[in-house]
Amino acid sequence: MSKASETPNGGRGRGGAGEKSGARASGNDEDKPSPAGRAPRRRDREKTIARILDAAEKLLEEKGPDGFGLAELGREADVSFGLIHHYFGGKAGLLKLVLQRTLRDMGQEIRSLQDDGSFWKRDAPAVLVVFDTFMRRPGFARLGAWGLLTGLITADDVANEFRADREALEAMIEEFRKEAPEPSRENVAAITTLLWSAVLGFSLLRPLLTSTFDWNEESDTRVREQLARAVVGLTRSS
Amino acid sequence: MSKASETPNGGRGRGGAGEKSGARASGNDEDKPSPAGRAPRRRDREKTIARILDAAEKLLEEKGPDGFGLAELGREADVSFGLIHHYFGGKAGLLKLVLQRTLRDMGQEIRSLQDDGSFWKRDAPAVLVVFDTFMRRPGFARLGAWGLLTGLITADDVANEFRADREALEAMIEEFRKEAPEPSRENVAAITTLLWSAVLGFSLLRPLLTSTFDWNEESDTRVREQLARAVVGLTRSS
Repeated sequence: MSKASETPNGGRGRGGAGEKSGARASGNDEDKPSPAGRAPRRRDREKTIARILDAAEKLLEEKGPDGFGLAELGREADVSFGLIHHYFGGKAGLLKLVLQRTLRDMGQEIRSLQDDGSFWKRDAPAVLVVFDTFMRRPGFARLGAWGLLTGLITADDVANEFRADREALEAMIEEFRKEAPEPSRENVAAITTLLWSAVLGFSLLRPLLTSTFDWNEESDTRVREQLARAVVGLTRSS
Repeated sequence: MSKASETPNGGRGRGGAGEKSGARASGNDEDKPSPAGRAPRRRDREKTIARILDAAEKLLEEKGPDGFGLAELGREADVSFGLIHHYFGGKAGLLKLVLQRTLRDMGQEIRSLQDDGSFWKRDAPAVLVVFDTFMRRPGFARLGAWGLLTGLITADDVANEFRADREALEAMIEEFRKEAPEPSRENVAAITTLLWSAVLGFSLLRPLLTSTFDWNEESDTRVREQLARAVVGLTRSS
């Protein structure tokens, strides 16, 4: 995954060309050059993009990926349709960036747990990061599943994302293996896949559980605890 | 869940009215009264329904739930559009029956494991039934996720399905708890939810894994084994 400070268009073309066409594409104040020069203008641009992505996540949660258009998003984020189109190149591009942002935030949280060596600890803080991210952001979870089903998320995206900082990813996996308790080293990929699968699947099932069964926050906590126990258990025995 | 021998329209109205309107609705030979009387006609009807559901599952796997219409399904199953419409009342009804059929088959397999007491055994045969069903039937898995996302599967469906044989379901859950190893009794719901979540999520992620990583059948086997170990581990420690 690339660094969070990169521009949203796939992490390429930061600064220069993007900002010039940005000023051209829109009448929105926040995208115009600021009198103070590049740095503040860049901060404005990043703030505007963050506001659009926040608004998109809100609409995703309320209406699902099929339920809103860019005009509605513009009203929600208080920016012009043209600016959204300029920044994201259409709805598919926007949705990919919504996914990317949360995945990168989550990646950073997990790497910081890895740095202080607590990734595989008994209370499995990394499991809780993934679980809590999906629970806190139902729009993200819904979009992830929808993206996998409809082909919005393609193998090329994943490959591009990985090429962008392949070395960092390989180093991370290597660290995982070294840090993992002995019996589970061979199974790091399977265990990680199961963690992601369980959280993604649970996000999909949860609305049905809450509307059908006597499901509540305590039930969520139980699932979260059992998931952490399952992952820790897998890393400790062969 | 209702018995597999029930008619497809929500498990209600077996025989009588359904068959009369069946003869009215279609010019298909298989739905006409057979000279030998009710029993053979009923078998023909069931065979035709099974053939339509098989064809639907094939199209679901190849094209996804949005990718085909009832006319194409009719050509695939070699029956008339009208007959499909009569049996299933439109595409939503058909898709629900595709889901229901597999869920009921799976339920029967799991109950037979329960009957001989092997549900919670170390090799977790029930986990393997669920995992293998999803792997063998990618169209079913895809439809399940799509149904949850789009609202095709509603809380009412689940409630109706449960009302149909609520007693059987309650007895089943009670058996599960009794049979489960002591420390996990309180957590039967959470563990079952995690199992379903993991398998559903993995079905969604798998196409991306196979096209991006060096993922193969051996990787599937590892995930399957780790999942069985995780579930067994959860039932054995507190």
